Amino acid sequence: LNSALQLSESSAVAFQGELGAYSQSAIYAFFGRDKVRKVVPLPTFSRVFENLCKSSNVDYAVVPIENSVAGSVGEVLDLLLSTDVKIIGEISIPIHHALLAQINTSIDQIRKVISHPQAIAQCKVFLDSKTSWQQVPAYDTAGAAKMIKEQNLKDTAAIASELAAEIYGLEILERDIEDDHSNQTRFVVITHHDREIYGEEGAQSGYKSSILFSTHHEPGALVGALSVFSSRNINLTKIESRPMKSRPWEYYFYVDFEGHASRDENCTSAIEELRRKTSELKVLGSYKRKNA
Amino acid sequence: LNSALQLSESSAVAFQGELGAYSQSAIYAFFGRDKVRKVVPLPTFSRVFENLCKSSNVDYAVVPIENSVAGSVGEVLDLLLSTDVKIIGEISIPIHHALLAQINTSIDQIRKVISHPQAIAQCKVFLDSKTSWQQVPAYDTAGAAKMIKEQNLKDTAAIASELAAEIYGLEILERDIEDDHSNQTRFVVITHHDREIYGEEGAQSGYKSSILFSTHHEPGALVGALSVFSSRNINLTKIESRPMKSRPWEYYFYVDFEGHASRDENCTSAIEELRRKTSELKVLGSYKRKNA
Repeated sequence: LNSALQLSESSAVAFQGELGAYSQSAIYAFFGRDKVRKVVPLPTFSRVFENLCKSSNVDYAVVPIENSVAGSVGEVLDLLLSTDVKIIGEISIPIHHALLAQINTSIDQIRKVISHPQAIAQCKVFLDSKTSWQQVPAYDTAGAAKMIKEQNLKDTAAIASELAAEIYGLEILERDIEDDHSNQTRFVVITHHDREIYGEEGAQSGYKSSILFSTHHEPGALVGALSVFSSRNINLTKIESRPMKSRPWEYYFYVDFEGHASRDENCTSAIEELRRKTSELKVLGSYKRKNA
Repeated sequence: LNSALQLSESSAVAFQGELGAYSQSAIYAFFGRDKVRKVVPLPTFSRVFENLCKSSNVDYAVVPIENSVAGSVGEVLDLLLSTDVKIIGEISIPIHHALLAQINTSIDQIRKVISHPQAIAQCKVFLDSKTSWQQVPAYDTAGAAKMIKEQNLKDTAAIASELAAEIYGLEILERDIEDDHSNQTRFVVITHHDREIYGEEGAQSGYKSSILFSTHHEPGALVGALSVFSSRNINLTKIESRPMKSRPWEYYFYVDFEGHASRDENCTSAIEELRRKTSELKVLGSYKRKNA
């Protein structure tokens, strides 16, 4: 159980993807596996945000915001802008790929490997040693594992999480087959804007905040906006530009900074000054920092 | 023929994707269709950059750098950092999707539509009116068109460019089926760093430059870096952060600004100051601006 949250026993947590996706591992890492009543796999990120905002059967969602190699997940940033959710936590997990197949299959029997193209690309060194294997793209790592089970494929392996092996009853032929073992994905924990979170009152330090803003169109507008942080010695941990929908080549910015947006005076005054310098500003939330 | 370049008659231009990809349309829009001796389709972006740097059979490449809706193409930014290429031009083209099928097929015969998931998502309104159609993801819009031709599919349509219809001999059942007609992709034209480009000597105004840099790890480092531009009234047209490979949660920055990095004194001094303030700096090139 995350110390900054008091979760009721009835927590249902949504994520994008099939059961066994890395997002599900992130849910367990953040909440603790025994504290999650139900995980709710949904096919798209927009369905995840829709469920949080429009239905009462989902309490939280855990969505990837950036990968240490591939970068930001633009679609998630756009949904944070366009919907009424708040960020209440973050969690980073290592992305270790495993090679999965039917029980009692040996690696010599494998002729074909299926997975998401990004996962296939991330296991290049391993796969280069299996020159006879056909590589088949799938839309999801966990979906590839599911396909092996459902279609009872004998000569095929999937690249997916170890959790997927457990969920679909597959055997792990090899662990950690990714080239770059430092590959991590950072997820944010979100809930509907109006939902209250208990148990955070006392906390003062070790926080991080996330905001979105757009600037006026003039030279130096971005530097002017960011200077509200540098002049107060507030450290930015991430900045990302994203295109505005239907306004080609106009951008909004996503920024993470250290400190609590409403409890830390230094941050409060930075936000106040930023509001005067930007055309739009949205505070997504402040939450316990989990990165090094 | 782009006025700032003198292309030899033997120009061969590489791009990522199948023949008929939007990148090929961008090549024709930039160079003029009659001035391109050969287009070279390659399966991955890394093969495109590899061909530019290590072989002599490709003169230029045209690669997407950002889409007005989907945002930056991270893999291309990473390759600009890790290889020895320079940017010599840019071109933006509108992304209009067409519905393609075998010649003499009517739209009533269609039961299935195949395309890249992003293209399918971009035609949501149109496809919502075709509730009986099965939607099948493919790895490439032009690849979907190619598949219809090669497999002689009768009840299937592809979402792809009009150029793909021409290349694969397909019929255009509907034009401009995308929801957002303002959707554009900006491409950069690149060549090997050592290749000389003629005909640019006189040009002084209307230029844009692209750079990459990483900052020291201290609060305000990014603002300090960007202030070399704002203090000189140089307009930034794009800023993007990208993760450093194998250094989780460290970033480099891609910045476009108005002006010529080596011919415009104001820009030259900004770059000089920036070099002192950053840990790494790479000037990718200066080229004629093509955006509004």
